[in-house]
Amino acid sequence: MAQLRIALAQVNGTVGDLTGNADLIVEWTRRAAGRGAHLVVFPEMFLTGYPVEDLVLRKSFVDASIETLDATARRLADEGLGAIPVVAGYLDRRADVVDRVGQPAGAPLDAAAVLYEGRVAVRTAKHHLPNYGVFDEYRYFVRGDRLPVLRLHGVDVAVAVCEDLWQDGGPVTVTREAGAQLLVVPNASPYERNKDDVRLELCARRAREAGCALAYVNLVGGQDELVFDGDSLVVSGTGELLARGPQFAEDLLVADVELPDAPAEFESGETPADAHDGTTITIERVLLSSTPVPPYPPETPPCAEPLGDLGEVYGALVLGVRDYVRKNGFRSVILGLSGGIDSALVATIAADAIGPDNVHTVLMPSRYSSEHSITDAEELVKRQGIHARTVPIRGMVDAYEAELDLTGLAAENLQARVRGNILMGLSNEHGHLVLTTGNKSELATGYSTLYGDSAGGFGPIKDVPKVTVFALSEWRNAQTAGLPPLVRASATPPIPQNIIDKPPSAELRPGQLDTDSLPPYDILDALLDDYVEKDMGHDALIAAGHDRELVERVIRLVDAAEYKRRQYPPGPKITPKNFGRDRRLPITNRWREIAAPHTPDPARVDTKQTAADT
Amino acid sequence: MAQLRIALAQVNGTVGDLTGNADLIVEWTRRAAGRGAHLVVFPEMFLTGYPVEDLVLRKSFVDASIETLDATARRLADEGLGAIPVVAGYLDRRADVVDRVGQPAGAPLDAAAVLYEGRVAVRTAKHHLPNYGVFDEYRYFVRGDRLPVLRLHGVDVAVAVCEDLWQDGGPVTVTREAGAQLLVVPNASPYERNKDDVRLELCARRAREAGCALAYVNLVGGQDELVFDGDSLVVSGTGELLARGPQFAEDLLVADVELPDAPAEFESGETPADAHDGTTITIERVLLSSTPVPPYPPETPPCAEPLGDLGEVYGALVLGVRDYVRKNGFRSVILGLSGGIDSALVATIAADAIGPDNVHTVLMPSRYSSEHSITDAEELVKRQGIHARTVPIRGMVDAYEAELDLTGLAAENLQARVRGNILMGLSNEHGHLVLTTGNKSELATGYSTLYGDSAGGFGPIKDVPKVTVFALSEWRNAQTAGLPPLVRASATPPIPQNIIDKPPSAELRPGQLDTDSLPPYDILDALLDDYVEKDMGHDALIAAGHDRELVERVIRLVDAAEYKRRQYPPGPKITPKNFGRDRRLPITNRWREIAAPHTPDPARVDTKQTAADT
Repeated sequence: MAQLRIALAQVNGTVGDLTGNADLIVEWTRRAAGRGAHLVVFPEMFLTGYPVEDLVLRKSFVDASIETLDATARRLADEGLGAIPVVAGYLDRRADVVDRVGQPAGAPLDAAAVLYEGRVAVRTAKHHLPNYGVFDEYRYFVRGDRLPVLRLHGVDVAVAVCEDLWQDGGPVTVTREAGAQLLVVPNASPYERNKDDVRLELCARRAREAGCALAYVNLVGGQDELVFDGDSLVVSGTGELLARGPQFAEDLLVADVELPDAPAEFESGETPADAHDGTTITIERVLLSSTPVPPYPPETPPCAEPLGDLGEVYGALVLGVRDYVRKNGFRSVILGLSGGIDSALVATIAADAIGPDNVHTVLMPSRYSSEHSITDAEELVKRQGIHARTVPIRGMVDAYEAELDLTGLAAENLQARVRGNILMGLSNEHGHLVLTTGNKSELATGYSTLYGDSAGGFGPIKDVPKVTVFALSEWRNAQTAGLPPLVRASATPPIPQNIIDKPPSAELRPGQLDTDSLPPYDILDALLDDYVEKDMGHDALIAAGHDRELVERVIRLVDAAEYKRRQYPPGPKITPKNFGRDRRLPITNRWREIAAPHTPDPARVDTKQTAADT
Repeated sequence: MAQLRIALAQVNGTVGDLTGNADLIVEWTRRAAGRGAHLVVFPEMFLTGYPVEDLVLRKSFVDASIETLDATARRLADEGLGAIPVVAGYLDRRADVVDRVGQPAGAPLDAAAVLYEGRVAVRTAKHHLPNYGVFDEYRYFVRGDRLPVLRLHGVDVAVAVCEDLWQDGGPVTVTREAGAQLLVVPNASPYERNKDDVRLELCARRAREAGCALAYVNLVGGQDELVFDGDSLVVSGTGELLARGPQFAEDLLVADVELPDAPAEFESGETPADAHDGTTITIERVLLSSTPVPPYPPETPPCAEPLGDLGEVYGALVLGVRDYVRKNGFRSVILGLSGGIDSALVATIAADAIGPDNVHTVLMPSRYSSEHSITDAEELVKRQGIHARTVPIRGMVDAYEAELDLTGLAAENLQARVRGNILMGLSNEHGHLVLTTGNKSELATGYSTLYGDSAGGFGPIKDVPKVTVFALSEWRNAQTAGLPPLVRASATPPIPQNIIDKPPSAELRPGQLDTDSLPPYDILDALLDDYVEKDMGHDALIAAGHDRELVERVIRLVDAAEYKRRQYPPGPKITPKNFGRDRRLPITNRWREIAAPHTPDPARVDTKQTAADT
């Protein structure tokens, strides 16, 4: 058996920051060398960041990526780190194809390279391109068709990229044919609720298919609407979990693995192999070093405990907010504090993400605001040490009403829009990023005002159903001891219990309660999950036990709100996954899931609506 | 030689309106039969509308499409129209593939069928899938691999779909091998400026490649941010233009074509053929009728004159507005009228699109509004007979300023946002669709206020550079005789000359002019076209003769505005093509085209900015 110490650099880079990301490659390689690692692996497209979207179509950006990669190889050698092979993702292009209609301009590749002894020892690129859900990679990349196999200390190490693990055939199949002892896989795999279990099972299955150990290194950090969770891992050739990194935090996961010896003979060069997906992949064998590592006592590899469901969600939200703020060059945020649970949770997440001193809140009471909405908000401000000011909206609302005769929903919207203006005005004046506070249940059903409470740059809980808002608030209140770097320690629970306990209300008319117009949130959220996330149709929803009348009402609300959202894009990006992006629906459309035709009237469905209003 | 009278039904359907579109198929087939046509061809996916985006991933929608197609075939026969073959685009699925990761759910097909004698005689589907620009078809469809060849009155007619014309290899190549005499191609090809010349050249080239005449039928109508322009045409096997339909209007283009006789023998069945694009296509021969049409005197086919460049652009804008309003169930629009040229042109387009009685305008003077801004707007209202009311904003602005101390840009934004609130309030109260009035030059450079002048459902001139705004206004003023159905006749030029002649100003501070912060529009627009549309980089722009300092300033402005637009989505859809959609840039990104790093500060770049402000 051969030994190898591999280091998985689960690092948080920034899209487009080639210099900064190259610095991170050097810094983390130095740390890996300090730990005695024989191989370092960085995440997918780490040098450029991921996803870079339409930047890949700019020639100057592809040039910059390739040049920076070469410079990084030289720099590693210059700084005495040339002897440790570094697997780094970057952006490259195919030189052997000409531009044609239907192919991404410049033939970009989602590439990975091995940097060794001051040079790029080998280059490869992702073979399977994801083009579903949040991925659009047929727009951006052409397919790679190589599998590098590096002889390193007497072990054959193959390199595949991210999606190559998720689809059948391709590099994993060819890895078995190539007889490698280790498959390393740089990834940029976004967090989804419950995905970690899927990921471990997948790695175990693919390791068995490839017939060798598998090292999976994942990106960590927030990037626009996506949050990458880390959770890197190593499994043996039989699929046994050997090592696992933490979630939502940077980490150098160092693991000693015992691997079968490679055959003594080795021949550099290229061999074509059937990829069993209708394509041919060229195995490219490269000799780095044939001498095995002298035997050494292995360390027990770390195996991080998963955070648990609510901890993961909360961690994703904190990291998503922190990185969106930081990577966009902001230092502070501003949000409206209503005294309700949504804005209370968003303020708490923001305080955990960037510190309470960078969180600015505005209380904007109206004639309909209850006494407790102010006192509860003030208590939250006091417990967390965030900034607050009060701006009553009555005078502004009166000024509009002096000129316009608005009634019903139009009058309710006006209050929300005045609040949106105040926040945007303070943002423009002082440079804070505006956070919105809408949750997924109310956004899905259209219970929100365009240019009002939806005005802002980032919506931390836009993809969080209301029942989860309650659960996260309870969960966070229980973490008074803290959970660095995601949760601050606090003397008291940060969210006053009355905010969690009182019935939700928008307070846009006297005595209004959410339950006036919506069913209880546990019933609503279960239905929304089946309709929006599982994409079940009308008949399937009823067969699953949902009330027929409620199904039809909620389908109407959701469809109207979705078309509305596309018609008047509502504002903030979200985390951990973009509610709007996964469903792309034509606006001028007459087809509806339910029998009764329902043409949304976009001027009418944009606020705090009731079933009667639609 | 054989004769055939073909009818190209250049019709305006509605996405999702299966029943309404099926009605149109029957109605226009009846018209074609009345004209003695032997074959009718409808546009791509006409039965479902195009593009249907994520609706194709819903099983219930695909089922409905297939069922409606079958019912339409029966209905045509029931109504005595079974003897005329009807080529109709619809949505189908591949039954022979199982769902897997990386393939669109349900394996949808961008299909076309021939309806004949109460049945679906043959089905096919688009082979080449466009996945660039505004197209995302790898997300939606799997590839078709058949070429139907119908023996009709002794002529062999092949059917291909839209993109199959644009890419090399595939159905066109196989059409030659199949020895067809006519290739009919249903299309849904959106309007782009100057595309009509490209389209005719393409059809002529592909006809020569296929070795036969080619009938190209294109959709007409507005669908969200796209406008389909019709412009259907027929070319001979040598590429000569035989017939051409109008632009931006429905039409039944009837053309008598003389074609070589097909070989006397005919064998139904399937033959595989090399598609010369790495795939195999199955030729499917189907006998409809072997008897040639008895000789008849051919009619001279119509050949519509192109509208000319400005006429085309204006036509696209009128049809885009009309269909967005109508297909979304609105009857009226509302917009702010500043007395400037942008809102004047938008009001004029709207009046042409839906009639002046359905156009509501609001004059919203501030303390900085000039006298002429009010009198010019009033003159425009009078000339066009549109509705107008005046709502001074001073009281509302004062009410905000009593509570908030906003300066500079924040104070300018406030005025724009108060106006946005007024329009949205009136929209909510009265059910008008809000039109925004921003042009492409100011939106590209960030000269716009979020939730202010960008608040609205549809932005007719969002993709129109300022120089074209002037040119369109002059062009429209010259069309007093009208150009139905796109331009109304008018006694006087609809736009007062002073609106065209005076220097542009946002009037958000005393004496403000656009030229205070931007270069002259002819210089700016030429540079924007090279940077945004042609995607030229920094060095290429300077090499093309643009001033270096201006290049760097404009790149900074555009990049900041683009990131801003993605960060705070600004609101309206646009026509004729979506400015934002073609450039998908990651927000949290540190890469910039120009050497000097420039991190946009999104709270600072969202309004009437000057170079100094960024």
